[in-house]
Amino acid sequence: MERPRVGELAPPDRLLMGPGPSEVHPRVLQAMSTPLVGHLDPAFIDIMDDVQDLLRYTFRTDNQWTIPVSGTGSASMEAAIGNLTEPGDTVLVPGNGYFGERMAAMVERAGGDPVFVEAPWGEPLDPTDVADAFAEHQPDLFGFVHAETSTGAKQPQVSELTRIAHQHDALVIADTVTSLGGVELRVDEWGIDVAYAGPQKCLSCPPGASPLTLNDRAMAKILDRETPVRSWYLDLSLLQEYWGDERAYHHTAPITNVYALREALRLVAEEGIENRWQRHRRMAGALKAGVEGMGMALNPADDWWLPSLNAVRLPDGVDDDAVIAHLLGEYGIEVAGGLGDLSGEILRIGCMGHSARRGNVLTLIAALGDALEAQDAAVDVEAGLAATRETLRG
Amino acid sequence: MERPRVGELAPPDRLLMGPGPSEVHPRVLQAMSTPLVGHLDPAFIDIMDDVQDLLRYTFRTDNQWTIPVSGTGSASMEAAIGNLTEPGDTVLVPGNGYFGERMAAMVERAGGDPVFVEAPWGEPLDPTDVADAFAEHQPDLFGFVHAETSTGAKQPQVSELTRIAHQHDALVIADTVTSLGGVELRVDEWGIDVAYAGPQKCLSCPPGASPLTLNDRAMAKILDRETPVRSWYLDLSLLQEYWGDERAYHHTAPITNVYALREALRLVAEEGIENRWQRHRRMAGALKAGVEGMGMALNPADDWWLPSLNAVRLPDGVDDDAVIAHLLGEYGIEVAGGLGDLSGEILRIGCMGHSARRGNVLTLIAALGDALEAQDAAVDVEAGLAATRETLRG
Repeated sequence: MERPRVGELAPPDRLLMGPGPSEVHPRVLQAMSTPLVGHLDPAFIDIMDDVQDLLRYTFRTDNQWTIPVSGTGSASMEAAIGNLTEPGDTVLVPGNGYFGERMAAMVERAGGDPVFVEAPWGEPLDPTDVADAFAEHQPDLFGFVHAETSTGAKQPQVSELTRIAHQHDALVIADTVTSLGGVELRVDEWGIDVAYAGPQKCLSCPPGASPLTLNDRAMAKILDRETPVRSWYLDLSLLQEYWGDERAYHHTAPITNVYALREALRLVAEEGIENRWQRHRRMAGALKAGVEGMGMALNPADDWWLPSLNAVRLPDGVDDDAVIAHLLGEYGIEVAGGLGDLSGEILRIGCMGHSARRGNVLTLIAALGDALEAQDAAVDVEAGLAATRETLRG
Repeated sequence: MERPRVGELAPPDRLLMGPGPSEVHPRVLQAMSTPLVGHLDPAFIDIMDDVQDLLRYTFRTDNQWTIPVSGTGSASMEAAIGNLTEPGDTVLVPGNGYFGERMAAMVERAGGDPVFVEAPWGEPLDPTDVADAFAEHQPDLFGFVHAETSTGAKQPQVSELTRIAHQHDALVIADTVTSLGGVELRVDEWGIDVAYAGPQKCLSCPPGASPLTLNDRAMAKILDRETPVRSWYLDLSLLQEYWGDERAYHHTAPITNVYALREALRLVAEEGIENRWQRHRRMAGALKAGVEGMGMALNPADDWWLPSLNAVRLPDGVDDDAVIAHLLGEYGIEVAGGLGDLSGEILRIGCMGHSARRGNVLTLIAALGDALEAQDAAVDVEAGLAATRETLRG
């Protein structure tokens, strides 16, 4: 067998304005290149403590059980769903986007029965529908997506949803993958029992260690399970021995990813979480103004607009793949197309974390205008740029 | 909630000579700080291809199904065991170390029935015992540990074990966590159907993306399953759409960890895999000579000595924790104690990847001598150092 001829690592320089990953701050990249200590080193235990504190601050929670899961966002998602779902449990999941479907798939893998509460893709759940679904199915768990990456829709009225669930003694799991660190999220105040996220969205950290928080009631359900969790790797009853007081070996943590997450979360704390939410609203607001100024619209209504992920409705006759290819080829900018029911109809433009900056928004609007003009779309790029500039100044 | 006061990331400088992680080459650290492209970027697809080619070279296999799993070594382990084990399957696992027990736990989580083939901790499996266990249990799968990190024992006679399994139409899963890239391993030639590993041992790569290879027969069993795999995140029938020809989104890959693995594997290819095995034998041989020169012995017999992980029997009356603390506190050197049946009786000293260098071995022997003398152990440090130097020269 010959040695493969593989050249130097030389990925192209991109501006990441898609659904994730987002741009990574230089301090976080630097943390990634820090030499390792062992995962059981006393110094690493201190780093673990720091990360847990910083995650609690960012999630707005006092939950003791607040950890990075050793994998990308879908791992923290399956850790949440797979640990909470026991065989035979009924789990209410949302039918209004791609990640609700993934929740259902994970519920089935865990031996549970998913039932859907429906809403059109791109719209949030209606609390009345959720209450009706609870009355009909009496679910043990209720999962919802706070920030639907596939549609750019935010779920408002979260406290109302959790109140309904708790009246029926169900636990609430929130997908906060695209909101944590960028969009207002108050885990404790809003009554969320379990929330999971990814680091590569509004935290602007390379993927590999993914935030998860659970309150005592959720952890009690896990520790009371009659059957073991179906994944050993993601079993929180075992992981508690590593992240809890014992610090006993379970598996090797992704040490470097934990370093990076610590630095990314330090940047969140330095900025202040509420300031950070405001920056996302402001930068994404300028992006939205630019899109609207050009003569297009976002897919979601303003009441459930998701600043971190802007779903732009494409003008009729415009091919999404051609626009995406133009942005990547001519500008090195990454954006994405729609999924599922919205495939071919929208562009998904991220405005997350370190990507959510003035210059990036201006560049994006100008480049998007160029790509649309190349498709002979009737857009007013000058008006779009003017609206963006005005919003940024405002 | 107050902002946590968390200082600069400043882990201490360590020399990693424990059971992993090992020292990381500067080029790999540099790869970790490379700005990201998206996980669906055409440029990342090329990087994925490179990693797959380099992994095939390192595993000595032509298996198409050769990928990094998005998690640390236990994730690739559970991907192997959880995908291959169907509910009701009987799986033969080794009783001679900690990681055989973990295999059994993962088999149970997958709904299978583990049965053990026994050997004392620190000794390899005897093919006669394996043949007897096959006759008794007719297992569907046979897992063995090529390099037992908990005992420092290597499994010799691998081809003989796989021949027995194949005579009984069973598939063979090999734990190569502590051998891949450091100890002779020939997946195809030896008839191994599935092998998994971790990157933070002999590949000297930060943990987070973990090698896995499966041949067509193993993949066919997975694609023919009657029940879905119990983890959505680790389901290889879904992952094949991302790592196979379609390149369809499954989950966000740990992009940076894939960059790093690529660079770590490039270093393997530059050195040449057989040269690398030889370097490990030579450096660990010098370490072994030093230990023996001081008047101690390794726990395993020479026939199953594992160069990458040296289990040193402690002199009577020496407290392992005190030695470990002395090495960490006075020298910044990480080594580890024994587990399970060997707890308190051995030190586990790694000699893996970028840690397996002349200077590190000399430092380790000198520091270990110092730590043992501090415990009033009757060791001849000068003789140990002389033996190490002579072996390094030879």
